[in-house]
Amino acid sequence: MQVVTSIKKMQDIVRELKRTQQTVAFVPTMGALHKGHGRLMERGKQNADVCVVSNFVNAKQFNDAEDLKNYPRNPERDKEFSEAHDVDYYFAPADDEMYPPGFLTSVNVGFLSSRLEGEFRPGHFRGVCTVVLKLLHIIQPTHLVMGLKDAQQFVIIQHMLTDLCMDIKMIGVPTMRDRDGLALSSRNALLSDEDRQKALCISRALKRVHFLVKKQGILHSGELLQAIRSAIGTAGVELEYAEIVNKTTLEPIDHVVRGGTFVLIAVRIGGIRLIDNTRI
Amino acid sequence: MQVVTSIKKMQDIVRELKRTQQTVAFVPTMGALHKGHGRLMERGKQNADVCVVSNFVNAKQFNDAEDLKNYPRNPERDKEFSEAHDVDYYFAPADDEMYPPGFLTSVNVGFLSSRLEGEFRPGHFRGVCTVVLKLLHIIQPTHLVMGLKDAQQFVIIQHMLTDLCMDIKMIGVPTMRDRDGLALSSRNALLSDEDRQKALCISRALKRVHFLVKKQGILHSGELLQAIRSAIGTAGVELEYAEIVNKTTLEPIDHVVRGGTFVLIAVRIGGIRLIDNTRI
Repeated sequence: MQVVTSIKKMQDIVRELKRTQQTVAFVPTMGALHKGHGRLMERGKQNADVCVVSNFVNAKQFNDAEDLKNYPRNPERDKEFSEAHDVDYYFAPADDEMYPPGFLTSVNVGFLSSRLEGEFRPGHFRGVCTVVLKLLHIIQPTHLVMGLKDAQQFVIIQHMLTDLCMDIKMIGVPTMRDRDGLALSSRNALLSDEDRQKALCISRALKRVHFLVKKQGILHSGELLQAIRSAIGTAGVELEYAEIVNKTTLEPIDHVVRGGTFVLIAVRIGGIRLIDNTRI
Repeated sequence: MQVVTSIKKMQDIVRELKRTQQTVAFVPTMGALHKGHGRLMERGKQNADVCVVSNFVNAKQFNDAEDLKNYPRNPERDKEFSEAHDVDYYFAPADDEMYPPGFLTSVNVGFLSSRLEGEFRPGHFRGVCTVVLKLLHIIQPTHLVMGLKDAQQFVIIQHMLTDLCMDIKMIGVPTMRDRDGLALSSRNALLSDEDRQKALCISRALKRVHFLVKKQGILHSGELLQAIRSAIGTAGVELEYAEIVNKTTLEPIDHVVRGGTFVLIAVRIGGIRLIDNTRI
């Protein structure tokens, strides 16, 4: 695995990969790598000749300075982890390499960015889109591999690629969960043991929705959301939002449409924000 | 010359150009082609194997519906003109090919976009940047050829390319002028004979600034701007702005720095906006 910190060096490598017509899978990360990232890397390797992983904690997508400060960082472990997953290039630019003085450009994907996460994290998706677009220009992948835990992020990036005519195939990788059901997330490391137990209410609520839809045939969003609110509330966890939306437009829908629906949840536990979702 | 209206077809052509490793110069236009555009095409041909011209009147960059409605259009003449200039590919997509229903993405280049033209045309540069970025993704040129009459546009696009790590060389082509000094512009076609005469005050004012700087050694911006205001005012023309700015940051400067300065003017004559500039 080659570790690269300079954009120019990365561009030289990309030029050579293009010249030799190799397909490139790109896995953007913010480090604090866990098994979920490992699966993204595996999927990258399966789909392309070369797998590039980036590790860049993108300050622009943090609306909350505390959250940025506390975000888990473990660059040495991340490098070893990526090497163990057979990654070919590990791109870890410094902040001022990505955003030198005078950086001004931002990308926005309209109303998709202002809803749900965007409502609770103003400017978050503008930061995400800007850094992803810049990384895509640097790495010029044929495939972009992203986790579906960040469902809204996935939808927004897909929309940006389509709008801007970027010829890149997106691969969405289903959320990995711990045995107890908790969706893997870098932020889980910040939870106390007690809060981690509380957090199980999220996946339980999503499981409950699946049960209600599949076994009891309940499709009415209001009823399903009531079940979520009750499962979260009983656990003493603060619900930021629970929504049932069309999987492409992210607009709320009155009734679940099988194959076309996301159920999205965001909670706050002991100061830590966690999100999770399921597709129906 | 091959005329292309579909993005997919254009992408197929680009894929083949890449495969055969040809360099591509791209000249984005909004049609109503004149000799100034002809020179852009010539510069494109000189610098690359292949020259692609686009003709797309980008509604997103018009803040004023009247201006969009009145913008001169002559697609058949534009095609002939491009063919006569030895253009290889003429890309003229329809509005809904470029912006299909559901298009949401926009690109912004911070404060550079809100000053000068941006102040008088809110949202203008967001529209410009969005369409140029999309066209660049479709055409993937090695060279981007643009006129320096739109100096702020040139600076902003250059800034966007740098910020987003797009490996494209920009070629800025000096403004072409009619014999009487008027900068060539598609909007000149909209001027009455009388207003066209009045419009000569713009280039006269810029010439006067050159004279004052070069022959009289006057570098103080206030004094030079006073000379501009007087030249424009005497002609009975409405000055929207006259500014003397750093050629990269577009920030006003107190004193002209030779080699690093733009003098920018925007006027309104009989409802038509005209801009012009000179570099010192």
